[in-house]
Amino acid sequence: MNHLQLFNNIVKKKSFLCVGLDTEIEKLPPSLLNHDNPVLEFNRRIIDATHSFAVAFKPNVAFYEYSGAQGWITLQETVKYVRENYPDIFIIADAKRGDIGNTSKMYAKAFFENMDCDAVTVAPYMGEDSVKPFLSYSQKWVILLALTSNKGADDFQYHNEDGVRLFERVLTLSQQWGNTDNLMYVIGATRAEMLKDIRKIVPQHFLLVPGIGAQGGSLAEVAGYGMTNKCGLLVNSSRGIIFADNSENFDKVAREKAREIQLEMAQYLKEHKII
Amino acid sequence: MNHLQLFNNIVKKKSFLCVGLDTEIEKLPPSLLNHDNPVLEFNRRIIDATHSFAVAFKPNVAFYEYSGAQGWITLQETVKYVRENYPDIFIIADAKRGDIGNTSKMYAKAFFENMDCDAVTVAPYMGEDSVKPFLSYSQKWVILLALTSNKGADDFQYHNEDGVRLFERVLTLSQQWGNTDNLMYVIGATRAEMLKDIRKIVPQHFLLVPGIGAQGGSLAEVAGYGMTNKCGLLVNSSRGIIFADNSENFDKVAREKAREIQLEMAQYLKEHKII
Repeated sequence: MNHLQLFNNIVKKKSFLCVGLDTEIEKLPPSLLNHDNPVLEFNRRIIDATHSFAVAFKPNVAFYEYSGAQGWITLQETVKYVRENYPDIFIIADAKRGDIGNTSKMYAKAFFENMDCDAVTVAPYMGEDSVKPFLSYSQKWVILLALTSNKGADDFQYHNEDGVRLFERVLTLSQQWGNTDNLMYVIGATRAEMLKDIRKIVPQHFLLVPGIGAQGGSLAEVAGYGMTNKCGLLVNSSRGIIFADNSENFDKVAREKAREIQLEMAQYLKEHKII
Repeated sequence: MNHLQLFNNIVKKKSFLCVGLDTEIEKLPPSLLNHDNPVLEFNRRIIDATHSFAVAFKPNVAFYEYSGAQGWITLQETVKYVRENYPDIFIIADAKRGDIGNTSKMYAKAFFENMDCDAVTVAPYMGEDSVKPFLSYSQKWVILLALTSNKGADDFQYHNEDGVRLFERVLTLSQQWGNTDNLMYVIGATRAEMLKDIRKIVPQHFLLVPGIGAQGGSLAEVAGYGMTNKCGLLVNSSRGIIFADNSENFDKVAREKAREIQLEMAQYLKEHKII
């Protein structure tokens, strides 16, 4: 999917919501446990229930890898289900991969060729040759970790050389590797006030913003500081939507939660004259 | 496996060699392609041929993930094969994972519970809570990326705050999270001259050193600068051993290559009065 198609979907759906499919087996509604593949059934029902209010789905690979080969089948089937039923959805493999060039190439193949994901999250620590193999695909995206939502972000991401913090160097240097059509950045919602500075470095790039909901970030602040005239934001919510309810009605409740966020998002899109 | 057991194996085998199982399907000897699972057959024969000269095996997960669910089965079977046949071998899942706490916990389960690996390589960018879940297992290890062997290491790992480079901050800060019994570091052999400075920060920790062979690092330099009185080194070779030959005799050639390296390693262990 390219930049314009993604933007058009945001306008059409009045939403920049990404639903995180962090499908932890232990948290599944008990009513699903009799299914052959409870995780896949859960994902399908969440996807069916929330797709109208979301432009992206983001399975976090850890929650699938945890179940080994069966988990990979579930992940592949989940991606396939979205592709076949909701072709306008942007699919992000939240994998946080990154290795030396010939190895990153294998990861890129795994997510872009063997699965038809639109984007993969990538960790920047190993630098250019660890990121570039993911950037060699047309209409596919790298979402590079810059400033993450967790507490540990303080440990290294603010490491400051002559006034340039590490996450700022990631934002600056990586613009030599990719562009606004194949590169986004992860910026945690819990660091929303930082978006003002960040937009000076990446005024137009899409940002994937996790951390609203369970992690405590504010959507209003994210939109206030981070929105561009082409939106430029994908805001993720995982647990706050998919595990909002544990009954047989989990999907209806998830739909309501997604709808609430979408309605708030529509407000911000209006305020920025995008819709 | 604990620190003492690993050291004892090094003494017993007169080797600190780690064989990297970066089993790229395209590079397999044609004679194997008729097998049901050529990658697994290749791994078994490489393991059988080289285990006498190695203390560790290191499958790089990318080369398995690339084949989806089938690849995960091959990875699991490879780990199981080593465990069952060569219980003194240290098994490293070279996965370079790392995510927010509740997610890293799932990765840790994947490699330490669902597969019985001894160690996982972890990327430090997201800080303490992304690393700690891997450290909560008894007799299991985190191998944290510090200074990697690839060209891209220059991009961020030398980011210098008041004389402290990022990789040095990783080495220093992470010592608050783990100790010499559950934490090692990746230091690329292509940066061997840096080992002198690095040993000032981590005088006793084991270092996993990739980059000899195909990547051009020197074993003599690595041993010269990095060896401690308890060895403190696991030096990896992947392509230089496993893909040294493409004929039906690939395992015999791999065995010879591993043996050559082991003999050189024995020299350095003698020079350091370890054996």
